[in-house]
Amino acid sequence: MEKKILKPYRRTALYYETDKMGIVHHSNYIRWFEEARIDYLSQAGLPYSKIEEYGVQIPVLSAQCLYKSAVRFDDTVLIKLHITGFNGFKLFVSYEVSDLMTGELRAEGNTAHFFVDKNFKPVRVKKNFPEIYHVFFDYLDSNLYE
Amino acid sequence: MEKKILKPYRRTALYYETDKMGIVHHSNYIRWFEEARIDYLSQAGLPYSKIEEYGVQIPVLSAQCLYKSAVRFDDTVLIKLHITGFNGFKLFVSYEVSDLMTGELRAEGNTAHFFVDKNFKPVRVKKNFPEIYHVFFDYLDSNLYE
Amino acid sequence: MEKKILKPYRRTALYYETDKMGIVHHSNYIRWFEEARIDYLSQAGLPYSKIEEYGVQIPVLSAQCLYKSAVRFDDTVLIKLHITGFNGFKLFVSYEVSDLMTGELRAEGNTAHFFVDKNFKPVRVKKNFPEIYHVFFDYLDSNLYE
Amino acid sequence: MEKKILKPYRRTALYYETDKMGIVHHSNYIRWFEEARIDYLSQAGLPYSKIEEYGVQIPVLSAQCLYKSAVRFDDTVLIKLHITGFNGFKLFVSYEVSDLMTGELRAEGNTAHFFVDKNFKPVRVKKNFPEIYHVFFDYLDSNLYE
Repeated sequence: MEKKILKPYRRTALYYETDKMGIVHHSNYIRWFEEARIDYLSQAGLPYSKIEEYGVQIPVLSAQCLYKSAVRFDDTVLIKLHITGFNGFKLFVSYEVSDLMTGELRAEGNTAHFFVDKNFKPVRVKKNFPEIYHVFFDYLDSNLYE
Repeated sequence: MEKKILKPYRRTALYYETDKMGIVHHSNYIRWFEEARIDYLSQAGLPYSKIEEYGVQIPVLSAQCLYKSAVRFDDTVLIKLHITGFNGFKLFVSYEVSDLMTGELRAEGNTAHFFVDKNFKPVRVKKNFPEIYHVFFDYLDSNLYE
Repeated sequence: MEKKILKPYRRTALYYETDKMGIVHHSNYIRWFEEARIDYLSQAGLPYSKIEEYGVQIPVLSAQCLYKSAVRFDDTVLIKLHITGFNGFKLFVSYEVSDLMTGELRAEGNTAHFFVDKNFKPVRVKKNFPEIYHVFFDYLDSNLYE
Repeated sequence: MEKKILKPYRRTALYYETDKMGIVHHSNYIRWFEEARIDYLSQAGLPYSKIEEYGVQIPVLSAQCLYKSAVRFDDTVLIKLHITGFNGFKLFVSYEVSDLMTGELRAEGNTAHFFVDKNFKPVRVKKNFPEIYHVFFDYLDSNLYE
């Protein structure tokens, strides 16, 4: 697979994502990380829906977010991710959420994942699903963005 | 199946269900209706998880909610439902959401449903799943609560 | 205000919006309607965040959705809305959700709203907030899209 | 304040919390942690709504969850929390999510928090809000459950 230069995932905070503190509820960042992963896969050329067609799922082993400054309704953020680890069995991704207008860091986070079939049995993607292997391995430890 | 006297579904508004207006976001009432249906099935003796074991799903054809007065964080509401229509193919349910403390009406609503298998093909519950048929038919048009 | 030709709101179904039936959970359509309203206001030239700066809020009086055919993960839909009623006190909006690729109708719905200040007291937008009045009145009963 | 023996927070997984993998979406655990904190405060005698009446808010600085085994629709879990750190400025809480029936560990996590007023300015709870101070300090590093 040819390695591409990607665009950060762009996301505007929705009204129903706010809570009574007037800011985006912290749980939504974990959802935004998922959106950024799925956007990454589309941009890299292997949409998650295609991974599912192979019968492969990529559940979450852990998720963490550090909140730096609040995102408010209608703010737009850019999310950049990095593949920080991948060996065909486990996948480690980190995330940076920054404000589109000011560039200010809003949050940082990371997730860990593994690869399973529809019955949640681990699968060896290197051997059995080279396309899945490469969509992560080819971007490992590299800068995805211009 | 023996018809039972049921308890209204009791639900306390969660922090993350509020929005920046300071009240529970209106979309959550549609979710509470679902919770009330599932609680009804448990109380009536046929949990939804058992319906799923039969390979039957009950998707939503329509949903409506009329908002009378806002529910706020930590308010507890009681949700009473009524089976307003059921013929083995379609199911119609109405809902009343009232404040536990004051009895004040907070919202009213209704949903319509049909019955399908895992491939979303309609199923005849009267003929093939009498237990599912009775859990709705036996309570049709009747007062479920003391 | 000059009346503009708008674009339908474009939305791709997110992974976390699906449920174990494998389709987008029905409650999310009510959220998408809100997104479509907010997108409409941005396109029409009066973002909802500006309405909030005026101290005005537009709560929901009722919401309804009729589900025609399921939206699945990664499907993209277009949402067109129509201002079906507006008298300065109440606002009525209808929605059509159709598949981007096939044009097939996925859902229809409607919401009703009123206008309040930060203390949830009704406000007269015609008299006090002409800009808010016009962003709805100027598009009343008209086709917003090419 | 008298220190009480608390009950673990009990939570049944809701239908709309599942995703198309058929398990509870990982983001919901972060919401369950919040529910467990709020339940803790109620049990300890200082409901969060009362903290809000003092004009104090407790935003999240970080959140982490390690997923051990999936929670499925209608499973009931118990969530136990521990106050692992508190100095009047920052609060650290850890969580254990286990299956009600089997006792099996489903997830572990932690959150960090600080204390602000309505304008998000840090507040000194020890000096200004002794009741808030004690609801956390009195349970610091101790076993909350029988």
